[in-house]
Amino acid sequence: MAFGWIDDQAELRRRAGLVRTLRPRPADSPLLDLASNDYLGLAHHPEVTEGAAEAARTWGGGATGSRLVTGTTELHTELERELADFCGFEAALVFSSGYAANLAAVTALGPHGSLIVSDAGNHASLIDGCQLARGTTQVVAHAEPDAVRKALQTHDGPAVAVSDTVFSVDGDAAPLAGLAEACREYGAGLVVDDAHGLGVLGDGGRGAPYAAGLAGADDVVVTVTLSKSLGSQGGAVLGPARVIDHLVNAARTFIFDTGLAPAAAGAALAALRLLRREPERAARARAVAGELHARLTAEGHQAVRPDAAVVSVRAPSPEEAVRWAADCRAAGLAVGCFRPPSVPDGISRLRLTARADLTDGQIERAVRVIGETRP
Amino acid sequence: MAFGWIDDQAELRRRAGLVRTLRPRPADSPLLDLASNDYLGLAHHPEVTEGAAEAARTWGGGATGSRLVTGTTELHTELERELADFCGFEAALVFSSGYAANLAAVTALGPHGSLIVSDAGNHASLIDGCQLARGTTQVVAHAEPDAVRKALQTHDGPAVAVSDTVFSVDGDAAPLAGLAEACREYGAGLVVDDAHGLGVLGDGGRGAPYAAGLAGADDVVVTVTLSKSLGSQGGAVLGPARVIDHLVNAARTFIFDTGLAPAAAGAALAALRLLRREPERAARARAVAGELHARLTAEGHQAVRPDAAVVSVRAPSPEEAVRWAADCRAAGLAVGCFRPPSVPDGISRLRLTARADLTDGQIERAVRVIGETRP
Repeated sequence: MAFGWIDDQAELRRRAGLVRTLRPRPADSPLLDLASNDYLGLAHHPEVTEGAAEAARTWGGGATGSRLVTGTTELHTELERELADFCGFEAALVFSSGYAANLAAVTALGPHGSLIVSDAGNHASLIDGCQLARGTTQVVAHAEPDAVRKALQTHDGPAVAVSDTVFSVDGDAAPLAGLAEACREYGAGLVVDDAHGLGVLGDGGRGAPYAAGLAGADDVVVTVTLSKSLGSQGGAVLGPARVIDHLVNAARTFIFDTGLAPAAAGAALAALRLLRREPERAARARAVAGELHARLTAEGHQAVRPDAAVVSVRAPSPEEAVRWAADCRAAGLAVGCFRPPSVPDGISRLRLTARADLTDGQIERAVRVIGETRP
Repeated sequence: MAFGWIDDQAELRRRAGLVRTLRPRPADSPLLDLASNDYLGLAHHPEVTEGAAEAARTWGGGATGSRLVTGTTELHTELERELADFCGFEAALVFSSGYAANLAAVTALGPHGSLIVSDAGNHASLIDGCQLARGTTQVVAHAEPDAVRKALQTHDGPAVAVSDTVFSVDGDAAPLAGLAEACREYGAGLVVDDAHGLGVLGDGGRGAPYAAGLAGADDVVVTVTLSKSLGSQGGAVLGPARVIDHLVNAARTFIFDTGLAPAAAGAALAALRLLRREPERAARARAVAGELHARLTAEGHQAVRPDAAVVSVRAPSPEEAVRWAADCRAAGLAVGCFRPPSVPDGISRLRLTARADLTDGQIERAVRVIGETRP
């Protein structure tokens, strides 16, 4: 029977304790949220939701076509200009998701004959980008500029190194300055995904590349998402204008995808303007993360020191991670639970996100619940 | 220099007349739109834009996380239930784009050791899905069930055939009943992308698989987009519940992507309900396409008989296609212009879309402008 093999795989997942199920949330969830990527607490900010609503009313429910046909509105262009300006890059190109932006950047900048040097801890979308690219991918040790150097040494021709700036699972940061130095020694480009850095790191949330002094460099390309700190949906690639022009002409997930919905562009633009006006939100997210980490380690949890707003706490096993997260939920606290295959090292963990709008009382309550439910 | 090779590619594009540039449109464009994929004219319908606005206000500017963490709201579930019900399938799963839905369906249903039989005219997102899948892909002649049969004969193990239902470039339909028959002879699954069929084909716009009697079949999986007939953004996979459960557990573009923005889910849901209430919109889109085709061929244009709402008109060369489209635009008519590499056969064409809300006067005007600007 067609698809019969699916049942065997489902049975294997059941036995391994790795079944995933969706849990729809109501609009008025009573849970304390330390699971979302809404780092600045902007997804529900009235200026952001009204930005979405106003854009839908003005520009329609959808972009109506691919960006090169009818899907580019003046709103998209405005968002691209302001994003590029905020992060310190010459130009930007907006996509329907961060996933699509990463596929675009890696495939368009990893042509036939090129070498793509990819960090072992990279996000799934960067890995898929490597697989789709015509170039040859070499996976190198996590966060090691010397490993990038060694890979680049062996290659003659176009090359890029590809890395997350902040790794999603453990929340640790990439050594951006070191990576850029390694790339420059060999004339290679650097492509970094700042999904978890934008809005959190750098002056007023301008992102990890800005903090590392790489903003506006002619050999650096940055991808970001509009769905985390900016509380919306979508992604973008930032870089030199010639790179962005190249993506317009060559990136399949740009050319063959419907443009981002106006409401998402409007929400992201409103959030960006809010962040410019209230730059202290970025520092507050980092402070909340530091506070969470300090309190959790003080209580003996194995938590990784956060470089941005993600705090990762190790769990003994996938099953216990699931049970722990479920017990937190039963006690009114939503936390993320990462298990294989979402964790590169096979170690399951709770994943906490430090929202800028968490109060001290909420932080205390979160730490208490995590301690009380500990396996 | 890093990215230096980009300039050489840009120069080659310039010489070949294949440079693409973005053309931002204002909110109040005076152009008559025959370029968008807004087949039912719903993107600007007040119920649809208000659906987006209301969802943003209620649920936030973004989904705040991946679908398995915080990104599934009750609104997503409602949309999935109503979409599945409308198209006649057991279950549905919503994605941030049709592109992501196609990557998910093909990769999750084309595991290691499987055979994926892919139509030569398939959309870029299906092609990328084949490339990402662990299975082996065999590309077969366009719209030929016997070619699928021949490919399946050679394989032992899980297999799927993958096809658009309506091909984007020429607007021709796949022989769905024939494809399903070929697949069933070999116990293979059938995965079809109904991006250009939903809302246009089948009873009240229920789509091409419904029209072909394949709705609800346990060996058929359908992908759709929310960004064409439904005037929003996003995509979905429809099929047996066990297949949908499998995607939740195995599809990377589902697991590692932020959930669809509430505004997009709200807009799509409003459009779907509108279509249920006004099923005649589907037939009207088809009638407009037929009318456009009849008039254009009567005037000697080389137009392909439309199976859905896309009417393709051949142009002598890429340069003349671009000039033709520009002249149409100067005369107040927006038409699509497809050139290599967006056309599988290398033949450039104007691509007209037949919106259900075009008036007879607008159709007449469009045909007149296309004739007057002909190369």
